[in-house]
Amino acid sequence: MTIKNHVGADLCVGPTVLGRTRGSAPTFKFSLMHKDPSCGARAGVVHTAHGTFETPVFMPVGTQGTVKSLAPDDLEEAGAQIILANAYHLYIRPGIDTIKLANGLHAFMGWQRPILTDSGGYQVFSLARLRGISEEGVRFHSHFDGREIFLTPETVIEAEEHLGSDIAMMFDECPPHDAARAHVEEAVHRTVRWAERAKRVHRRKEQLLFGIVQGGRFKDLRVQSLEETVKIGFDGYAIGGVSVGEPKPLMEEIVRAVAPLLPEEKPRYLMGVGTPLDLLWAVEAGIDMFDCVNPTRYGRNGCAFTHSGKVVVRNAEYARDQAPLDETCSCYTCRTFSRSYLRHLFNCEELLAYRLVTLHNVSFFISLVQSARRAIVNGEFVPFKNHFLSEYDESSR
Amino acid sequence: MTIKNHVGADLCVGPTVLGRTRGSAPTFKFSLMHKDPSCGARAGVVHTAHGTFETPVFMPVGTQGTVKSLAPDDLEEAGAQIILANAYHLYIRPGIDTIKLANGLHAFMGWQRPILTDSGGYQVFSLARLRGISEEGVRFHSHFDGREIFLTPETVIEAEEHLGSDIAMMFDECPPHDAARAHVEEAVHRTVRWAERAKRVHRRKEQLLFGIVQGGRFKDLRVQSLEETVKIGFDGYAIGGVSVGEPKPLMEEIVRAVAPLLPEEKPRYLMGVGTPLDLLWAVEAGIDMFDCVNPTRYGRNGCAFTHSGKVVVRNAEYARDQAPLDETCSCYTCRTFSRSYLRHLFNCEELLAYRLVTLHNVSFFISLVQSARRAIVNGEFVPFKNHFLSEYDESSR
Repeated sequence: MTIKNHVGADLCVGPTVLGRTRGSAPTFKFSLMHKDPSCGARAGVVHTAHGTFETPVFMPVGTQGTVKSLAPDDLEEAGAQIILANAYHLYIRPGIDTIKLANGLHAFMGWQRPILTDSGGYQVFSLARLRGISEEGVRFHSHFDGREIFLTPETVIEAEEHLGSDIAMMFDECPPHDAARAHVEEAVHRTVRWAERAKRVHRRKEQLLFGIVQGGRFKDLRVQSLEETVKIGFDGYAIGGVSVGEPKPLMEEIVRAVAPLLPEEKPRYLMGVGTPLDLLWAVEAGIDMFDCVNPTRYGRNGCAFTHSGKVVVRNAEYARDQAPLDETCSCYTCRTFSRSYLRHLFNCEELLAYRLVTLHNVSFFISLVQSARRAIVNGEFVPFKNHFLSEYDESSR
Repeated sequence: MTIKNHVGADLCVGPTVLGRTRGSAPTFKFSLMHKDPSCGARAGVVHTAHGTFETPVFMPVGTQGTVKSLAPDDLEEAGAQIILANAYHLYIRPGIDTIKLANGLHAFMGWQRPILTDSGGYQVFSLARLRGISEEGVRFHSHFDGREIFLTPETVIEAEEHLGSDIAMMFDECPPHDAARAHVEEAVHRTVRWAERAKRVHRRKEQLLFGIVQGGRFKDLRVQSLEETVKIGFDGYAIGGVSVGEPKPLMEEIVRAVAPLLPEEKPRYLMGVGTPLDLLWAVEAGIDMFDCVNPTRYGRNGCAFTHSGKVVVRNAEYARDQAPLDETCSCYTCRTFSRSYLRHLFNCEELLAYRLVTLHNVSFFISLVQSARRAIVNGEFVPFKNHFLSEYDESSR
């Protein structure tokens, strides 16, 4: 079954503030190209002011305006079509004005493909010392220098507009995973009101604005949050407040319940997820976009993701192993270096170690999701997923 | 004045142990192409089993089989024609056997151009806990794990042959810069006897073997060391035991005195030197090859070398500076990133910071020496040097 579903042709086209929209072809927000007949998996294309990206997509995380240890040319080598940055972190350092002066985040960090900026809602509630949440916004002390900061749905949008990202996330309230129902319910209602305010002040036509569904572990609150957020109307929808410490089966249950209820004609983004196995069941549930620090964080710790499972490069068994990290991988690291050499670099704490394993991991996540996409296009997603599961051992070795 | 001076045609050609010598063209050790008419500066080409490099040349330092923070593709981007690795460090970690198993250092580290291996003489005498120097060799405790190690001129050559470097340095005794004359004299004589032993056991025909001139701050001992080392006969000659803590004017005086006495038809290598200004006066004195940790070490500390002097990237004055590190530089870092962005990366202690400034610095050193070579070829070295000096401010800012 193949459907073509061009939507969102109302998006501003022609020369933009960033001056990067090329030619006069219409810029669609999202084209849903294929749906797998046997599950929720789908393949599409998102069109932005900095070009298109294909979904499902994995977005490497560049919190502070850099995907840790990788340069833009590494990201291109890894096949990244879009990356994520964090408005909260960039607000703290170097400050939005500094990036505005550079003509936006793309120019500042030397990355010319699409960027999604997270609003920092999750970071404010997890990293910072909170002073108080009011209807107006959140007052907190910066996790970096203790400076008092007051963020509102409006100031966050303003920051994201100055950053010039292609997709801006609204500012949401993200309660802890074990918060009481009353607290979660309050956060859902406030997040909906903040969604309305974000939508109202958002001016940058060539920037897509995504709403975020909260509701924690409570399905009815999730549905309520979803319905009210969709009613406001966004260019895409994210499931937030998952992968924040709750048991994994619970997360899977929530995502499987919520994803199919999200509007079919808009991109669906699962925030902060996950492992290779998570990506597959979530694609199956109908998710289009992912971000996660796993490939970069594990990479810096010397743990490589491969098609057969995780390889802890520092382990003595790899001291003389002439094989690449993953025989089936075509990334620069796997084309060029043996496990033996990578282990040597980690043993010597050489900076190159962190980059090479990160580059492999990011390539692996991107390639996994791209392979899933090809399988969807070919109508073979479920066999693809089962084959991957049959080879992948979740333990480390 | 242009002279062509093809020497060393006795070098093994055709398929080698490494199987990398291409075609059937004769492999010459050193071709001296140009001599500057007004000073000692010279331009040449050294031919090795892994291709040629042009002299004067700057060799980035890859002590542990990696030029700190850079991958082989970065080194190619920076224009590196040859790099240095250290047999002592590789002997300690990962061990010569591990690299032998990988079919040599080129394959192990993914670098297919020439490699020079330092013997580690300097490191043994500076880093390790010495147990004793005898006629036979040196007993010491590893700087890494305290393990007792005994190195001789023969074991070092054996290690370098297994590493498969294109140029092997002999094992020498390097006394402290302020050692008494009797100590230095003894080291000179021992180093000459060790040179004879190194030459005697060296078997790998496609690997060039360089002798090292010692003699500390004593010119007569330098001349004695030089004459006796040249009498033994090597493929090239290094000036060792400089840049080890002595005053810079003394170093310059020694090098200016010794360099012209080295055989004209062999490459001349000044070990462990230096700053941009050092490179220029040493080229003027007739030096062909350099290595130094300055570009990598300063790079990791956030200090960039530019044509106008050193730029301390972290300084607040660069917070909003949209200019590249050096307007005249065409490296990836200068083509892509502003000082403002690089400062942000250093402030956030992002790994990318170290790589980007290192890449620039290594490019700068290589490019400076390549520009000097072009000036020599055009008979304009002295004006080139004077122009550089007129723009370069040695203080940091």
